[in-house]
Amino acid sequence: VEMIHIDHFGFLEDGTFKQRYLVADKHWQQPGGPILLYVGNEGDITWFCNNTGFMWEIAEELGAMLVFAEHRYYGESLPFGQDSYSDSKHLNYLTSEQALADFAVLIQNLKNTQPGAQHSPVIAIGGSYGGMLSAWFRMKYPNVVVGALAASAPIWQFPGMVPCGDFYKIVTQDFARSGYNCDTNIRKSWKAINNVSSTASGLQWLSEQFSLCTPLKTKNGIISFKGWLQETWVNLAMVDYPYEANFLQPLPRWPVQVVCKYLGFNSTVSDYQLLHGVSQAAKVYYNYTGSSSCLNMSESATSSLGWLGWTYQACTEMVMPMCTNGVQDMFEPEEWNFQVFSDECSAMFGVRPRADWAGTVYGGKDISSHSNIIFSNGGLDPWLAGGVTYNITDSLISIMIPEGAHHLDLRYSNDHDPPSVRAARALEVKYFQQWIRQATKTPQTSKT
Amino acid sequence: VEMIHIDHFGFLEDGTFKQRYLVADKHWQQPGGPILLYVGNEGDITWFCNNTGFMWEIAEELGAMLVFAEHRYYGESLPFGQDSYSDSKHLNYLTSEQALADFAVLIQNLKNTQPGAQHSPVIAIGGSYGGMLSAWFRMKYPNVVVGALAASAPIWQFPGMVPCGDFYKIVTQDFARSGYNCDTNIRKSWKAINNVSSTASGLQWLSEQFSLCTPLKTKNGIISFKGWLQETWVNLAMVDYPYEANFLQPLPRWPVQVVCKYLGFNSTVSDYQLLHGVSQAAKVYYNYTGSSSCLNMSESATSSLGWLGWTYQACTEMVMPMCTNGVQDMFEPEEWNFQVFSDECSAMFGVRPRADWAGTVYGGKDISSHSNIIFSNGGLDPWLAGGVTYNITDSLISIMIPEGAHHLDLRYSNDHDPPSVRAARALEVKYFQQWIRQATKTPQTSKT
Repeated sequence: VEMIHIDHFGFLEDGTFKQRYLVADKHWQQPGGPILLYVGNEGDITWFCNNTGFMWEIAEELGAMLVFAEHRYYGESLPFGQDSYSDSKHLNYLTSEQALADFAVLIQNLKNTQPGAQHSPVIAIGGSYGGMLSAWFRMKYPNVVVGALAASAPIWQFPGMVPCGDFYKIVTQDFARSGYNCDTNIRKSWKAINNVSSTASGLQWLSEQFSLCTPLKTKNGIISFKGWLQETWVNLAMVDYPYEANFLQPLPRWPVQVVCKYLGFNSTVSDYQLLHGVSQAAKVYYNYTGSSSCLNMSESATSSLGWLGWTYQACTEMVMPMCTNGVQDMFEPEEWNFQVFSDECSAMFGVRPRADWAGTVYGGKDISSHSNIIFSNGGLDPWLAGGVTYNITDSLISIMIPEGAHHLDLRYSNDHDPPSVRAARALEVKYFQQWIRQATKTPQTSKT
Repeated sequence: VEMIHIDHFGFLEDGTFKQRYLVADKHWQQPGGPILLYVGNEGDITWFCNNTGFMWEIAEELGAMLVFAEHRYYGESLPFGQDSYSDSKHLNYLTSEQALADFAVLIQNLKNTQPGAQHSPVIAIGGSYGGMLSAWFRMKYPNVVVGALAASAPIWQFPGMVPCGDFYKIVTQDFARSGYNCDTNIRKSWKAINNVSSTASGLQWLSEQFSLCTPLKTKNGIISFKGWLQETWVNLAMVDYPYEANFLQPLPRWPVQVVCKYLGFNSTVSDYQLLHGVSQAAKVYYNYTGSSSCLNMSESATSSLGWLGWTYQACTEMVMPMCTNGVQDMFEPEEWNFQVFSDECSAMFGVRPRADWAGTVYGGKDISSHSNIIFSNGGLDPWLAGGVTYNITDSLISIMIPEGAHHLDLRYSNDHDPPSVRAARALEVKYFQQWIRQATKTPQTSKT
């Protein structure tokens, strides 16, 4: 652990907290061998560490030290211990800028104290929100990292940058191509749920079909139920990996195809038949191992992710507009309404989101003056919608993995990996080597 | 004025304040003509506006709008009005990062609301601390400004970057070359003050010679007196302009030469003769106009500068080590002692400085990945010590003005200007035009 200032941008709060980081230096060639820094995102760092096999697999080739740094307010890196989430006062230091400053201070301290690390070039690596941080880290602290891999990083999923409907369109496309009528039947299912749940017996039937731990009772319950199902389809699209894996949940290979096997009805299907299929499909996601006695609507993914913290971040800086229209996507139509969102945030946390801030502080689409960032994206990943999918300059590179879901490239290699992800990883390593060579050739001016 | 968030890096404090900015658009060629943004420093923006003739003189040639933006906590841009300086809680938002965020939000708002400004390339211009902000603004917000002129900006005057004694060495060199024995006699004067002030009659004589408003009474008074004189020599070196000017004080042309006329004694001078000369010299600085009836030790420069605010900033982020040894400089030896400094800050403001933060957040000497910044420096300016005095890359440019004092290039042109400053200004304009062309050729990706 490293002692880090709770507030990097003010001096009244002079407390520190223990930031957790994991180090693996078995293959590190000191002095001066590179450091691969995993830029932690919204969860427990050990979980990300275990799900980022790519770093472990390339450490020897690069002679690199691996550092996995935990993001403040997640895992064990709690600025105020058990009180960190107690109120908006304690949550006030949960921002991406503070997290980036943590990483910068951590690396500077490491270089100043670890023998042989002083001139080590550091490369930032991250996925999803961690990928955004990774890109932003290179943009804001190019003195600390020589380059960054931003895997499946939706740095443009902010107001005014991309259409709000693209995200759910991609989810829908995944289902459409994974089985006959799969998207069509999911699109139909919302009305079927409304129909069936309109009677008490229908409600009971629904709860039983889905083996819900807490039976549905109210209209609000139905809204939550549909939201939970929508999130399930999104998560399935995100983790549609070509092999059996356990990221958000334990799942079979190509899980969307498995799910779609239960959703291949033709147009004559009844509401009850359809929803039976939907329940079978949902159980692929929630009970692949067969160990769940009931489905808990409040748990849609691994508990290693810090959903409350992320909700706070979404309610402040990370304003990501999403919308559906039910035509180009398979969901019930819902517009993006910033005011409603802002009011919910205010009720929940006592803070209001600032829609334009992320674009101002991180550059939005005007990032061409930066350098040495790889943006990798998977063609199956809904977060592709907000990603950088073309080369901006010859050192702001896009790598597409058409058969990839959410940051597939960061995972351990697998016999079932499509050629595109193998090529992506090879190219990423090539860029890493190039950045390391650049940094070694033109050493940073040493301090006097 | 523009309504700006008091805290850009936290969401609990959701108050706003009125940031003042001045606009001159007489010569602006809309739509799309460039904007020259003066990045305000630690003082009243109208004073900087009046002392930055360079911008007024080039506006027509560039077809530019001029914007002078005031730095928070100075002038009229007070986040908490009259309470802004009342305690460390209210001072908590006085940081360079918050100020840069103010400027970024201000420009983004201006572009979104001012017809014809949406695609205007913005160039940041500043001097001294404002020059540091100008360079940092380009580094941190290249999406907002296409380039920056950082005039006399000591971005390396931070711990571990340059020797702490260089600043006072340059002051000394200025005096050494401005008159026979000038530095030697100032070096002698400290002992002479100690000698003369050791008796009550000597103290009284000193107070009378210097026409002090408040006579010297104590040993602490003598320490303050010597500190005040030291600051006087520093300020004279800073404003050693080749023509009569009124920046920190109304002064004759080449004021250090004028001062040195009173300090040309040979080695046989008595303490009393020497100090009489020193008093005459000091009065050049404090009473050139002849309108002062007495000298006030608490006022060493224009009241347009916010010394309390700057002292707070020096006590938090802007940690600038200075030291003297009495050999290579003309001052009493004094080591840089961070702990003593930190304790003074703690006593004064209840905060402690963070020695390494500025280097981490602004890159220290490792800034080569940035672009489009001109660092101009004057050979007579003590702040040259912490400046960038060589080209780092072909778009991180150093311009030296050997006969220039503190950001001479930013001032109105004058018949007495040395050729070097004329050439510097011409080159600066050439770079501005190049940046503007670049930005116009490759327009920033427009928002959807």
